[in-house]
Amino acid sequence: MGFGGIRTARVLAGKGLDVILADRNNYHLFQPLLYQVATAGLEQESIAHSVRAMARNWSGTRFQLTEVNGVDFVSREVLTDTGCIPYDYLVIGAGSVTNFFGLESVERNSFDLKELADAETLRNHILTAFERAVLEPDPARKRALMTFVIVGGGPTGVEFAGALIELVHFVLAKDYPELSTHAARVVLVEATDKLLASMPAKQRTYTLKKLRSMSVEVLLNARVVDAGPERVTLHDGAIIPAHTLFWSAGVKAAPIAAVIDVPHRAGGRIPVESDLTIPGHPEVFVIGDMAYLEQEGSALPMTAPVAMQMGIYVGKAILAKERNSSTPPFRYCDKGSMATIGKNAAVASAFGMDFRGYMAWLVWLLLHLYYLIGFRNRIVVMLNWVWYYWFHERQVRLITRRDGK
Amino acid sequence: MGFGGIRTARVLAGKGLDVILADRNNYHLFQPLLYQVATAGLEQESIAHSVRAMARNWSGTRFQLTEVNGVDFVSREVLTDTGCIPYDYLVIGAGSVTNFFGLESVERNSFDLKELADAETLRNHILTAFERAVLEPDPARKRALMTFVIVGGGPTGVEFAGALIELVHFVLAKDYPELSTHAARVVLVEATDKLLASMPAKQRTYTLKKLRSMSVEVLLNARVVDAGPERVTLHDGAIIPAHTLFWSAGVKAAPIAAVIDVPHRAGGRIPVESDLTIPGHPEVFVIGDMAYLEQEGSALPMTAPVAMQMGIYVGKAILAKERNSSTPPFRYCDKGSMATIGKNAAVASAFGMDFRGYMAWLVWLLLHLYYLIGFRNRIVVMLNWVWYYWFHERQVRLITRRDGK
Repeated sequence: MGFGGIRTARVLAGKGLDVILADRNNYHLFQPLLYQVATAGLEQESIAHSVRAMARNWSGTRFQLTEVNGVDFVSREVLTDTGCIPYDYLVIGAGSVTNFFGLESVERNSFDLKELADAETLRNHILTAFERAVLEPDPARKRALMTFVIVGGGPTGVEFAGALIELVHFVLAKDYPELSTHAARVVLVEATDKLLASMPAKQRTYTLKKLRSMSVEVLLNARVVDAGPERVTLHDGAIIPAHTLFWSAGVKAAPIAAVIDVPHRAGGRIPVESDLTIPGHPEVFVIGDMAYLEQEGSALPMTAPVAMQMGIYVGKAILAKERNSSTPPFRYCDKGSMATIGKNAAVASAFGMDFRGYMAWLVWLLLHLYYLIGFRNRIVVMLNWVWYYWFHERQVRLITRRDGK
Repeated sequence: MGFGGIRTARVLAGKGLDVILADRNNYHLFQPLLYQVATAGLEQESIAHSVRAMARNWSGTRFQLTEVNGVDFVSREVLTDTGCIPYDYLVIGAGSVTNFFGLESVERNSFDLKELADAETLRNHILTAFERAVLEPDPARKRALMTFVIVGGGPTGVEFAGALIELVHFVLAKDYPELSTHAARVVLVEATDKLLASMPAKQRTYTLKKLRSMSVEVLLNARVVDAGPERVTLHDGAIIPAHTLFWSAGVKAAPIAAVIDVPHRAGGRIPVESDLTIPGHPEVFVIGDMAYLEQEGSALPMTAPVAMQMGIYVGKAILAKERNSSTPPFRYCDKGSMATIGKNAAVASAFGMDFRGYMAWLVWLLLHLYYLIGFRNRIVVMLNWVWYYWFHERQVRLITRRDGK
């Protein structure tokens, strides 16, 4: 269950309706912290929370672990691996998947962060690269094993780059005395001329300076066009010998969007009416990353806050329909955006104000703890952060599987 | 690294020797708590601790992530996937693997708990079984999905049975209101006429009564002879329809024991001299589960305390050899044994005294926290225990992969 769906469910609970939550995972995943699992800062369990643990307290709500394959909009049924689920109202919020824009060699040779398993796989890959670097006699290959190329200068790319270089300098430098970890490279490749494009100019400048001061190599106006297991090729033909390529340069609507027979927008998103229904089907809602809706001339971003507000809106809209009353159109209230770069360093723009550095970092930290679901999860995450802050230790540097690409 | 090896390393650290730790995992695994990971009580990361995090503080010690394939005892080299490692002294403590005693159908259709991944796989399997039971229309199949057969009445079998029935009755009963979870069955099958055979009679009686009062079905003098994906067959032909079979009825020395060319003892264990070396090779030590040594007429058990004491002994023995002094023969000091059955219920025999119930449970809890490596791990584990104790909640009921058998 994503950010949108669980909020719809919460609004609908205890209102005398029969609510079925269908998902292929039995947990809600707090995606914004996946990068910290990938950089050995958090255990994967601390950013996931059982849907049944929530649904217990939501009367009238049932959970079904299943893979949704399609929807019959005429007979009003959801088609799943475990049979059909009839519906009166349908809320689709299956989120997004990584968009490689047709670059097959990149897709084959890169890592992304959308699912819980992705984070564990990437952590194992990063740590295994250092283990292999220890034993590698050839200096060029040793360097390549310690070179990490990150594509995409949005929040995920920036946060991952910062967390990774800190992992190397603060933690792995002590773990691997036999390696010159200062020779490790973290290269952030961004196609436009700016990082965190949606942020004000001052925030972007701070981010760029801060990352460079942490010795992240930021390449602006650069694109990755090809990749192999040990190299990344840029648009100008330059080759970076690198054992790890991380792709966060784009997302597109989850494949299930294909079942909705309307002309899709960029990234496969579904254009929705102002009440988040699809044309001709006032009983079908699309929310979150899958929904395409313009507000003041531009499309709403594919972010958790949008999904959460849409989820709450749809819950209320369904209740209104049941009462035969009407709902005003959906309006996204932008409370701001933020990204953390490193220890004591973040950017946050909220309530018309810009925060940078320590203050922004603190705001980021508190808001993430607040939105994380599960009280025990909050404690474990906070514990990990305190540990890192005081001792420069990330405890979860375990290689738990060896299924890396 | 196991219980023995890390203790040898700790003794040898900072003594001017060059110590190489070779392991295929980069962590020390606290195996005695694997069953709590499998029953959704602990996150896997909290019972594992990075070897490099420890080796950092052990001067002269290096870690190598590798698969050991053999040993050349003549040229004194360890043969690994990543090349040869020459040695002056060699300490082999590769532990044990599950012994299915040639029962191929059982091996194919059962779960065991030796590695970290086993625990996650088993947890996913148990939780998925309940999800499938929700959707299963046939009552017999529904019951089989909620039936768990555990083979082996040693500490692992007893602890797993208790933790599993509590998971079902205290936690899953609330998660799955659509299921009659009181119909779930946990069947413990033991080949002899007693549980926890190494314990005094009073402790065994308490354990049996306690488990039965928790509605674990304990079958004594019973053996599993065959198994399929949905059934378990006993020695008398009785068939238990069960979706999950857990095997803890035996262990044998790790496969690497085969490289040592001496007649092995039962379970493939290597007979060692009184100083834990192998005959003819005073520079090669075998410790832990792999070592076969009799004391007062019976073989030392394959347990963590034996491995720990052997590990410390070998560290001291190597230092003595370097000083050309001699070491008295190894003697295992039996500090007792214990097993936890459920909340407030355990048995512990130590220092000539027998504890049962709450006191034993408290002793068990404190000793496990003490032996767990990593301060942060202790806090996270304690947090989980407190949570369970107060709220009857096990937070890690996530289905993280779907690779179950």
